[in-house]
Amino acid sequence: MQQKPRVVIVGAGFGGLTLARTLRKDPLDVVLIDRNNYHTFQPLLYQVATAGLEPEEIAHAVRGVFQGHRNLHFRMATVTGVDFPARQVRTASGTLIPYDFLVLAPGAATNYFGVDGAEAHSFPLKGLHEAVILRAHIIRQFERADRNPALIDQEGLLNVVVTGGGPTGVEMAGALLELFQMVLRKDYPDLPIDRARVILIEMADQVLAPFDDALSRYACRTLTRRGAEVWLGRQVVRVTATAVHLSDGTVIPTRTLIWAAGVKAPPLADALGLEQARGGRVVVEPDLSVPGHPEVFILGDMAASRDEHGRLHPQLAPVAIQGARHVAEQIRRRLRGEATQPFRYTDKGTMATIGRNAAVAEIHKPVSFKTTGFLAWLMWLGLHLIMLIGFRNRLQVLVNWTWNYFTYDRSARLILDGRPPDDEEPPLTLEPESTPGVADHGA
Amino acid sequence: MQQKPRVVIVGAGFGGLTLARTLRKDPLDVVLIDRNNYHTFQPLLYQVATAGLEPEEIAHAVRGVFQGHRNLHFRMATVTGVDFPARQVRTASGTLIPYDFLVLAPGAATNYFGVDGAEAHSFPLKGLHEAVILRAHIIRQFERADRNPALIDQEGLLNVVVTGGGPTGVEMAGALLELFQMVLRKDYPDLPIDRARVILIEMADQVLAPFDDALSRYACRTLTRRGAEVWLGRQVVRVTATAVHLSDGTVIPTRTLIWAAGVKAPPLADALGLEQARGGRVVVEPDLSVPGHPEVFILGDMAASRDEHGRLHPQLAPVAIQGARHVAEQIRRRLRGEATQPFRYTDKGTMATIGRNAAVAEIHKPVSFKTTGFLAWLMWLGLHLIMLIGFRNRLQVLVNWTWNYFTYDRSARLILDGRPPDDEEPPLTLEPESTPGVADHGA
Repeated sequence: MQQKPRVVIVGAGFGGLTLARTLRKDPLDVVLIDRNNYHTFQPLLYQVATAGLEPEEIAHAVRGVFQGHRNLHFRMATVTGVDFPARQVRTASGTLIPYDFLVLAPGAATNYFGVDGAEAHSFPLKGLHEAVILRAHIIRQFERADRNPALIDQEGLLNVVVTGGGPTGVEMAGALLELFQMVLRKDYPDLPIDRARVILIEMADQVLAPFDDALSRYACRTLTRRGAEVWLGRQVVRVTATAVHLSDGTVIPTRTLIWAAGVKAPPLADALGLEQARGGRVVVEPDLSVPGHPEVFILGDMAASRDEHGRLHPQLAPVAIQGARHVAEQIRRRLRGEATQPFRYTDKGTMATIGRNAAVAEIHKPVSFKTTGFLAWLMWLGLHLIMLIGFRNRLQVLVNWTWNYFTYDRSARLILDGRPPDDEEPPLTLEPESTPGVADHGA
Repeated sequence: MQQKPRVVIVGAGFGGLTLARTLRKDPLDVVLIDRNNYHTFQPLLYQVATAGLEPEEIAHAVRGVFQGHRNLHFRMATVTGVDFPARQVRTASGTLIPYDFLVLAPGAATNYFGVDGAEAHSFPLKGLHEAVILRAHIIRQFERADRNPALIDQEGLLNVVVTGGGPTGVEMAGALLELFQMVLRKDYPDLPIDRARVILIEMADQVLAPFDDALSRYACRTLTRRGAEVWLGRQVVRVTATAVHLSDGTVIPTRTLIWAAGVKAPPLADALGLEQARGGRVVVEPDLSVPGHPEVFILGDMAASRDEHGRLHPQLAPVAIQGARHVAEQIRRRLRGEATQPFRYTDKGTMATIGRNAAVAEIHKPVSFKTTGFLAWLMWLGLHLIMLIGFRNRLQVLVNWTWNYFTYDRSARLILDGRPPDDEEPPLTLEPESTPGVADHGA
């Protein structure tokens, strides 16, 4: 039996999944490796964290995507390194997986920028499990405040601080406002929900910095009008279990800091022994291959690929998806003995939603225009539905969004993290003679 | 302000939730306490564990159920004891909650009957988190087997043992067969799925013992025909991390024992200092009140309530639901100064499903009949949809069931337990020169 060349793909994110799908009719053996047995639709993670969608709705089992495609093998594992001379990847369990072509597309990790206490005391939002944990944590603070409202002032129990004014931070802040004002306000009638603050911290002097100024201002204005506090020109310099310290000396008491300030290359990038650029991204040739290893490609967030002006590509899904199609073609060219071509990223535009009926969209292809508000929001909804994998996920998300939109409900507000209910709760003794009904909610 | 009598309800299961809903227009202050912030629809837990439904679909946020009802206060806490003379319940955090009437409806806990190793090495199925953990565990074994098929024989990696031939055990065994044969067979084309055994252990000489003989035989026959091994007249006597030991000396190598053998009263029952009957259930007066404490009622699984022949009521949802309506009425009678009435449980019938197109139903009210197969299955589906709380949950479950039925798919097959992928995986070195594509799945 003649051996087909083996392509090992590390990561089942937008890049890895697109590549595996693109190659599925090619005469290759494709091995797709991921830490999880599912693909996560990361752009909607913030909706899982704010109880708008269920975790299963934005995930798709990798094996389900490739059912019936015998040239693809999936393996659930963490890749820890690559032995380039031997052409093998190494997994956390010590297993070695040989390759003829290797494509690294592991995505990005949260970048805490060395801020003291940030990793220990803030909530990142890169994975599905993290979103479920954050969802539980946020609702848990409301349960704690309901038991003991004094903690709202004493500990800032209902303050949520989001750091990072990019799309993730803006969308998260907007979704939190909706969760608080439309859902939790009714769930906790005894709580002063107006004192549940959503504070968005951004180092630059505007949110959504890569967008057009008018769109950035619209986003900032909309967030503020809906009740968020947008603090520009400041950054988080220290985090403890109970407070966030800012560069201007402000201290915000809170139990909930959501870290959307940035990403960096994952540990795998540091383990490769290759040249790295800003944020740990690995330097690649114009064709996305690794210098000196033409059989190895890197695509997506971890690749330090550049546009024709020498600027690093943004770390966005479309770059990974286009990179995947490019790499598929280069592997075919290599196998035919042809020279490879440089990768060209086409920026079709970007969008971000602030929430209900409000979004910004900056479109470059096929026509160039900018828009805000309801139209941008509809475009955002449509695009995300189209991008979701699998008819069933789309249908479920559509049903859920429709339901949430018309009922102002969020059905997924479950505390489902396996922790006991009284976790972290300080002892609290009620006066038995106090007014029934209100007593155990009073101070 | 005149104080309204306070009714404290412990447990937001079928009993507690029904009681709180029944009382929601009464001039009372109702405090509902549960460990979770959601009600779990326990009859469908096994479908979450087998990836047929998503956790959020069979749960409903308690505060959502009572939105707009200001006489109800929810508190998330674990109740650890009752101070009957002071009329206070105590929670795990030390908080004391006073009551005028107390209704204990905490449900049941898993009963391991003192079997050596059972608690440490088996999977119970009483809560949503347990179902998510079990789902992850089952799929994880398939991932491990796919990496190293030798473990199927060596460790019985794909053997799943279910102990307890009641409705839970039968439904679980049936759902596992479908998951294996319809979904995982396609997900793992390299694995010999026919060697994924589902073994149902039952101490008695038939499954579904409380049902009519003909129905029990139908269930046993159907399970067997679909591929389960139904082992009657045996019981689990010892459990280790890698094997299940039976009373006849048989040792089944497995990593997955699902414990559906029985329930007992939860720890709260033992902490009350009251007389207990079989399984730790607390002895109650015919009106469901606690002897000597007419202001305290117990309902559902924890109450040792009896029928007119002195037999303990079964530990089923309908008993708790009818008990809740009864207790609501007794509280009203008490407040009017009237004598209470004894609780009468009306057994309208029972059903259990073996899976796709197959169920048994034994109906007593309004008309008495027995049926099996497709009709019973449709009845089972309809009843469970009606019983689910909330239009949205019903809609989602209906969509999911329809999808699963026609596509033979299970979309929720995610390993989402927060554990690393290589957990438990022994190091395994591949021969780099072995056949690509199949190599890393070979021995």
